[in-house]
Amino acid sequence: MAELCISSVLVTGANWGLGLGFVQHFLRMPNPPQWIFATCRDPKGQRAQDLQNLASKHPNLVIIALEIADPASIKAAAAKVGEHLGGSGLNLLINNAGMDKPKMLEAERLEDMTETYTTNTAGPLLMGQVSLQHYSTAAEGSLPIPGSGLSCSKAAIVNISSIGGSIGSAFGWDLIQIVSYRCSKAALNMLSKCQSLAYKEHGILCVALHPGWVQTDMGSAAGHAPPVTVDDSVQGMLKVLSSLSEKDTGTFRDWEGNVIPW
Amino acid sequence: MAELCISSVLVTGANWGLGLGFVQHFLRMPNPPQWIFATCRDPKGQRAQDLQNLASKHPNLVIIALEIADPASIKAAAAKVGEHLGGSGLNLLINNAGMDKPKMLEAERLEDMTETYTTNTAGPLLMGQVSLQHYSTAAEGSLPIPGSGLSCSKAAIVNISSIGGSIGSAFGWDLIQIVSYRCSKAALNMLSKCQSLAYKEHGILCVALHPGWVQTDMGSAAGHAPPVTVDDSVQGMLKVLSSLSEKDTGTFRDWEGNVIPW
Repeated sequence: MAELCISSVLVTGANWGLGLGFVQHFLRMPNPPQWIFATCRDPKGQRAQDLQNLASKHPNLVIIALEIADPASIKAAAAKVGEHLGGSGLNLLINNAGMDKPKMLEAERLEDMTETYTTNTAGPLLMGQVSLQHYSTAAEGSLPIPGSGLSCSKAAIVNISSIGGSIGSAFGWDLIQIVSYRCSKAALNMLSKCQSLAYKEHGILCVALHPGWVQTDMGSAAGHAPPVTVDDSVQGMLKVLSSLSEKDTGTFRDWEGNVIPW
Repeated sequence: MAELCISSVLVTGANWGLGLGFVQHFLRMPNPPQWIFATCRDPKGQRAQDLQNLASKHPNLVIIALEIADPASIKAAAAKVGEHLGGSGLNLLINNAGMDKPKMLEAERLEDMTETYTTNTAGPLLMGQVSLQHYSTAAEGSLPIPGSGLSCSKAAIVNISSIGGSIGSAFGWDLIQIVSYRCSKAALNMLSKCQSLAYKEHGILCVALHPGWVQTDMGSAAGHAPPVTVDDSVQGMLKVLSSLSEKDTGTFRDWEGNVIPW
């Protein structure tokens, strides 16, 4: 299995949970990326303190304000990324920012549906669009990787989805209904498939990942006790990403590499 | 195969295309429903003329104004349905109203994503919620159907989806990208699965249907020539609906009864 070799990565929702875990793992790599762009809503807020502490020690970590539900904010963030990258490309976009509003089907409201969809589905679409301008350079400029036209070391969009978005499995229905979340993640899986088809010609690999049931604030809601640590999940996902090649673009996998039914 | 035997049905987007086709087929049945509730945005508008002509000849056809993206409008429409039904139940809800905004992935905007999702996914969810109060009566009051706990003659929610929402097939990608539409229909398929799980205990069968590539305004957009007539599509779907039983709830089928991959 090839090692992930990334010169620049952008992680959304990077101030806590899985997003922060990704940043920590990238910083700890033997060859850390030249640029790690970590976005969050409020970089100066209390919830971004861990990220700020890391940035004070690592000059390759750049924190950028981003409201994923606001196209103007996305464009402004992309411009800042461009300033740092100069002419070089972005290797990897990790669409990690997400939200849920746990409710029974009968209690779902229009506002819950659209808010969840905007953050979990439309946001990743817009992030893919603005990142695209940086990708071509990355795909062209990277070293050729043996046996693979596409790879995460070259140029990739990774959408953090959920097995809750698997229509075929309806996983965990007895535990929690979360219909607005499930619908948004099923749609995110469709988006991943669409991105894989549209961006193949640009040399970009696209994949949807289920991180496992992780010990984050979201995973632990309603008194649940998730089995997977943030560290194990992120390590597993990075291992999966390093193993992906052209044949895997447009697939839906879990943190251990298993293919999940749509 | 059992005949469909429905005493009341509600069809959204009933003033044109498939919706109007459903209404015409119900009116032509040997035993037509006692109540056919046909909803559309503007019952007095030019585009509702065919529906108005039908209503002037058929007293069992009731036209109701409904803006599917407006929860208040949905509640008002449900109240009117309730007035006509009195104590009897609604047998069948056909969530047919839908929209698309054909665009390439790179041109999709947040507004397109949320507008399409609101109409194609959130609307059917809200319609299911307000119809639920009328369903229990229908499920309890209907004659027992041999060999089946659930059936469309008893109580059912039918979501008109599309093979364009099949993540597994990515059908027609080379012809048309329509990402906002595809994402909303994949989410609608997830909603159908969630409704089937949540409403089983209420005796309601839930299914997602692909009507075929039909000769409607939507199907014929961008100069395409769809192969299926509205008449054949509706007749096919009604035949499929009449054949469904408990084991089929939560599935995704086309107008000829074939199971479509999620």
